[in-house]
Amino acid sequence: MLRILLACFCLILGMGLSGPSRADAAYQVSSPDGRLTVEVGSSFGEATYQVSRDGKPVITRSKLGFLFTNAPKFDRSLRAIAQETASFDENWDLPWGEVKTIRNHYNELTVTFEDGRGAPRRFSVTFRVFDDGIGFRYNFPDQPTLKEVRIGEELTQFNLAEDGTAWWQPAGEWNRYEYLYHRTAIREIGQAHTPMTVRLNSGLHLSFHEAALVDYASMWLRHAGGTQFVASLAPSSRGAKVVRTAPFSTPWRTIQISEKATGLIESHLILNLNEPNRLGDVSWVKPYKYVGIWWEMHINKSTWGSGPKHGATTENAKRYIDFAAANGFRGVLIEGWNVGWDGDWFGGETGFDFTKPYPDFDLAAVAAYAKQKGVRLVGHHETAANIANYEPQMEAAFKLYESLGVDSVKTGYVADAGGARFSDGKGGIVFDWHDGQEMVRHHLRVVEAAARHRIAINTHEPIKDTGLRRTYPNWVAREGARGQEYNAWGNPENPPEHEVNLVFTRMLSGPMDFTPGIFAINPTQPGHRANTTLAKQLALYVTLYSPVQMAADLPEVYAANPGPFQFIKDVPVDWSQTIALNGEVGDYVTIARKDRASSDWYLGAMTDENPRDFSVRLDFLDAGRAYRAEIYRDGPQADWKTQPNNVVIEQKVVQRGDVLRVKLAPGGGQAIRFKAQ
Amino acid sequence: MLRILLACFCLILGMGLSGPSRADAAYQVSSPDGRLTVEVGSSFGEATYQVSRDGKPVITRSKLGFLFTNAPKFDRSLRAIAQETASFDENWDLPWGEVKTIRNHYNELTVTFEDGRGAPRRFSVTFRVFDDGIGFRYNFPDQPTLKEVRIGEELTQFNLAEDGTAWWQPAGEWNRYEYLYHRTAIREIGQAHTPMTVRLNSGLHLSFHEAALVDYASMWLRHAGGTQFVASLAPSSRGAKVVRTAPFSTPWRTIQISEKATGLIESHLILNLNEPNRLGDVSWVKPYKYVGIWWEMHINKSTWGSGPKHGATTENAKRYIDFAAANGFRGVLIEGWNVGWDGDWFGGETGFDFTKPYPDFDLAAVAAYAKQKGVRLVGHHETAANIANYEPQMEAAFKLYESLGVDSVKTGYVADAGGARFSDGKGGIVFDWHDGQEMVRHHLRVVEAAARHRIAINTHEPIKDTGLRRTYPNWVAREGARGQEYNAWGNPENPPEHEVNLVFTRMLSGPMDFTPGIFAINPTQPGHRANTTLAKQLALYVTLYSPVQMAADLPEVYAANPGPFQFIKDVPVDWSQTIALNGEVGDYVTIARKDRASSDWYLGAMTDENPRDFSVRLDFLDAGRAYRAEIYRDGPQADWKTQPNNVVIEQKVVQRGDVLRVKLAPGGGQAIRFKAQ
Repeated sequence: MLRILLACFCLILGMGLSGPSRADAAYQVSSPDGRLTVEVGSSFGEATYQVSRDGKPVITRSKLGFLFTNAPKFDRSLRAIAQETASFDENWDLPWGEVKTIRNHYNELTVTFEDGRGAPRRFSVTFRVFDDGIGFRYNFPDQPTLKEVRIGEELTQFNLAEDGTAWWQPAGEWNRYEYLYHRTAIREIGQAHTPMTVRLNSGLHLSFHEAALVDYASMWLRHAGGTQFVASLAPSSRGAKVVRTAPFSTPWRTIQISEKATGLIESHLILNLNEPNRLGDVSWVKPYKYVGIWWEMHINKSTWGSGPKHGATTENAKRYIDFAAANGFRGVLIEGWNVGWDGDWFGGETGFDFTKPYPDFDLAAVAAYAKQKGVRLVGHHETAANIANYEPQMEAAFKLYESLGVDSVKTGYVADAGGARFSDGKGGIVFDWHDGQEMVRHHLRVVEAAARHRIAINTHEPIKDTGLRRTYPNWVAREGARGQEYNAWGNPENPPEHEVNLVFTRMLSGPMDFTPGIFAINPTQPGHRANTTLAKQLALYVTLYSPVQMAADLPEVYAANPGPFQFIKDVPVDWSQTIALNGEVGDYVTIARKDRASSDWYLGAMTDENPRDFSVRLDFLDAGRAYRAEIYRDGPQADWKTQPNNVVIEQKVVQRGDVLRVKLAPGGGQAIRFKAQ
Repeated sequence: MLRILLACFCLILGMGLSGPSRADAAYQVSSPDGRLTVEVGSSFGEATYQVSRDGKPVITRSKLGFLFTNAPKFDRSLRAIAQETASFDENWDLPWGEVKTIRNHYNELTVTFEDGRGAPRRFSVTFRVFDDGIGFRYNFPDQPTLKEVRIGEELTQFNLAEDGTAWWQPAGEWNRYEYLYHRTAIREIGQAHTPMTVRLNSGLHLSFHEAALVDYASMWLRHAGGTQFVASLAPSSRGAKVVRTAPFSTPWRTIQISEKATGLIESHLILNLNEPNRLGDVSWVKPYKYVGIWWEMHINKSTWGSGPKHGATTENAKRYIDFAAANGFRGVLIEGWNVGWDGDWFGGETGFDFTKPYPDFDLAAVAAYAKQKGVRLVGHHETAANIANYEPQMEAAFKLYESLGVDSVKTGYVADAGGARFSDGKGGIVFDWHDGQEMVRHHLRVVEAAARHRIAINTHEPIKDTGLRRTYPNWVAREGARGQEYNAWGNPENPPEHEVNLVFTRMLSGPMDFTPGIFAINPTQPGHRANTTLAKQLALYVTLYSPVQMAADLPEVYAANPGPFQFIKDVPVDWSQTIALNGEVGDYVTIARKDRASSDWYLGAMTDENPRDFSVRLDFLDAGRAYRAEIYRDGPQADWKTQPNNVVIEQKVVQRGDVLRVKLAPGGGQAIRFKAQ
């Protein structure tokens, strides 16, 4: 009742203003805890929203609207004509995940806008306000005046109420999210991909992203000066950035809001804004750890292509299968087994054959050997983003894998030719942005096709994650940022702050197949190194969540380091709880997670180039029982620069309420298994 | 010889490096005075350039390249394989202009790059290095491997060697260059239109722009973080941002470079990079001053549309013609005479009829009356950017004007519907960006059609000026920034710094029809005002160059202020010399110009919101003769805020070498006629 009264009050206020003949209107909605408030309305012909927290502005008046390539814009002469409100509260379970159950609790406001010109046209915007942030999306109704919707640009603004510090990755560049994160003043941002995370001068943390990116172009954030940002959709080589037929809704534009940096990690807003599981029974989607023929190519010990150094041979595959079986890894990834890697695959010129093995690789024999050893092959489809070559083969390729018992496939989209390659339908090719509408569509076609064969997908050089794993639980992981391979050949390699940056940016979007666990740290190959300590490589298994985690280094390296390797063997990949114990964006972070299959807890802590010394209260442990803490910590001489491999492994018995002192070396980390006694 | 040796040295250096198998190469070229040096080459497969001045870097290593929508990109695997050098020095005359003769003096370097992948492809880049800056353009040769060139994005980088202050206007917004200029740190730029002017911390001034924008998309500058910028071409609703058939060359990317801010004003680099006059005899293109039925609509005294307040009536037109004839104005602009202004013309929904007058306007009679009075009508085509409506009528519309003795037309492109409206060839419409390739083409079609009828074009809401007046001398002026009309209804109006900002940004591109001369300053209409003094309004006739200058205020206002009006009657619009006497970007500026038709000189000085007090040595006056200085200066109480109309008019006799003290009020200015005795 109060809400309705407030809305009416604002409406009357608006009508009292002098100005355009059209009445202004404002509606508002607050979060369940009452702290976040969104106000939506029209003023001087513009559709706008604003966000406040505890009455203090967070997002100041920001415009909503669109340019079209086939119709006049939604930008002026707009009038809010109706509102609808709703509330929602439920708990839902994840088939796999960083937690078992998520509460989806929000208040909703939908405001309908009408265009005052000529034949009236309408759109509405739905805001969902959670305790941990907001999401909103546009709805295009079925109306004769705007049936085929060709969007030239989305005009959504995000005007921050104050300056602060931003962690962001440049957008509009060509390398599919694989840039280092910049840390700059908000005013110094160029054009950013999402998630973009900021800490306002007042201390409040925000992260901008989107949820449920389906059949639409990816949203970039264009800095428009000061602390103002505007949506910029990834372009299309076909013209309009988005082509849809009404009715439809856009993806959700999201702002996660938290006083503490750690609150962003614990927010489930992105998943909550996605549709529930659409695949039915997904018990066939299995979290797993894996090893594979991969790192040896990156460090130039073998090749993807054929020849004397070919990595994917029957013999080598069996070696990895043996290693996996002996050490309890479910998966063995084999890259480079199928024809197409010779020649300019990197440039997308070579068409891969997704079912034809090289002569030195006996696919059937390898699969049979794996089965016999109780190990699953992890399939691999490097598409080189040559979609025109991949899609016609996709069905056969998944079918082949299914017949061999392969239930997960890593896909790759290295697109060095200048974009994703599609057929133009006239015998020519068309290059498209890796995150434009065409590629967004493609990725979902792959996931749906894979689901029909009960195969999980782990996409590398992907479209960014927007929480679609809720709707398609077989889309288990992605890359979507600089991974471990940059430590094999990057120029520069990932700096010590990189993984901590990821936790507060990339990881907010969803699981990342970072491929941790490099023990041969310096050098990885001549002239290159990982800029972490060994203990930090272990911590990554806890801090960088993924339901599929690789032990990326070579079997012989692990064999030579059985002590630290034990943590990789022990660490689970499926969790019932996740708690971010401490952390500051880009500086350090400590995360505890509880195994889904037991009462064990795990802790990962890591830092940037600065050492850390802090205490952690073990309040997360189950009450009334003892835990054996198996601690993998930076040794006294550990330093990412000079002594990365100095690690100490020790055990002690602890219980809930104990205080643990955690010391992290420069570039270091710590991993702990709390084994319930 | 030295240059060749240097190039060879760099080549050998490059080959000595480990890295890609392909040899690096570097070539260089310097300005005629030897101070500016450009180095161009390939390194690790990238094509790059860099610019230094006196050996100190100005632009650090910056990439060159392209994305295509129908072919692999030019971005990697590139190798510089050949160079050609040339030098050029000539003087050329402008048929009309701010100067009579321009020296075009540069050294040129063309470097050819080859793509290492598959069937080799080539492009070359031509650099012209002047004493006052550089220009470079890409050349696409005729080659079977890249015939139809569909450009997805141009990848040209501009990496500044240091931070500093920038004056810029946001690009990617929808309002056709009509934004206030921002003054921010270079690092705080969002996405900018050109000209974008910066002052580096070392004090060096640069202005980024382009020359000869023909059949290509306009270039924006996207801030990529730090002090790095990347070209971003205006989008096309048809897909690729630029579609061309090889061979062709791109527009010139230009960087004007000057120690002093005033050096930018005196640079003719943009014009020098344009092709010579293509129209032959252009003696029919006449600089002129004009009055017209225009300001009265902006201040709501009359309307463009029909009805009781219709401005363009036969009677009102005759009143303006009488006023023009009595006061020596060649031109009378009449807006709103043709059918189409009623209804939603602002939204581009109404199709203007460019030959059909409203019933209360007798076009033939008005034209005859003007002729009898020795006055020329200035034609008007408001297209509302409805190109689909305008182009089919264009020929008839110019023909009509020609038959009536009209030899200049003001065109308008108010595009509030969301872009320029084209036919999609299938009965539908397509909206395009005001500065995309389609509109660039359209504007040139208009100028060429007008030239066939010996008509000059003054474009409002135009494509930006890139010096094409050299090639098409009938393209006499444009708007292309916030003009005077914002003082009638702007929210906010133009601030006191606005016109000084224009001199160092917008005006570097070419003449602007700003329409100065508002004497009824506060209010212009209720609730609005001009934020200048009256003396500053007069100074604008000298500081903001255009061969067509309006006396924008109402005849009755001028009649009531004969003193200051005298300056407007006297000031020429065609000059033989221009000297920027002093100035700092956005703060203040003093410019002297010499009348082409006499030995008279004129001076205009203006400031932002701060008062100024400086001395000017009259070294520009012709030696050995006396001048009567007719001075229009801010009075002792003048202040844009409180007493904008406080002006003092005085005379004194001066000669070359005298020192003149110039005091400018806050928001003030000064205008002087030096009448040769």
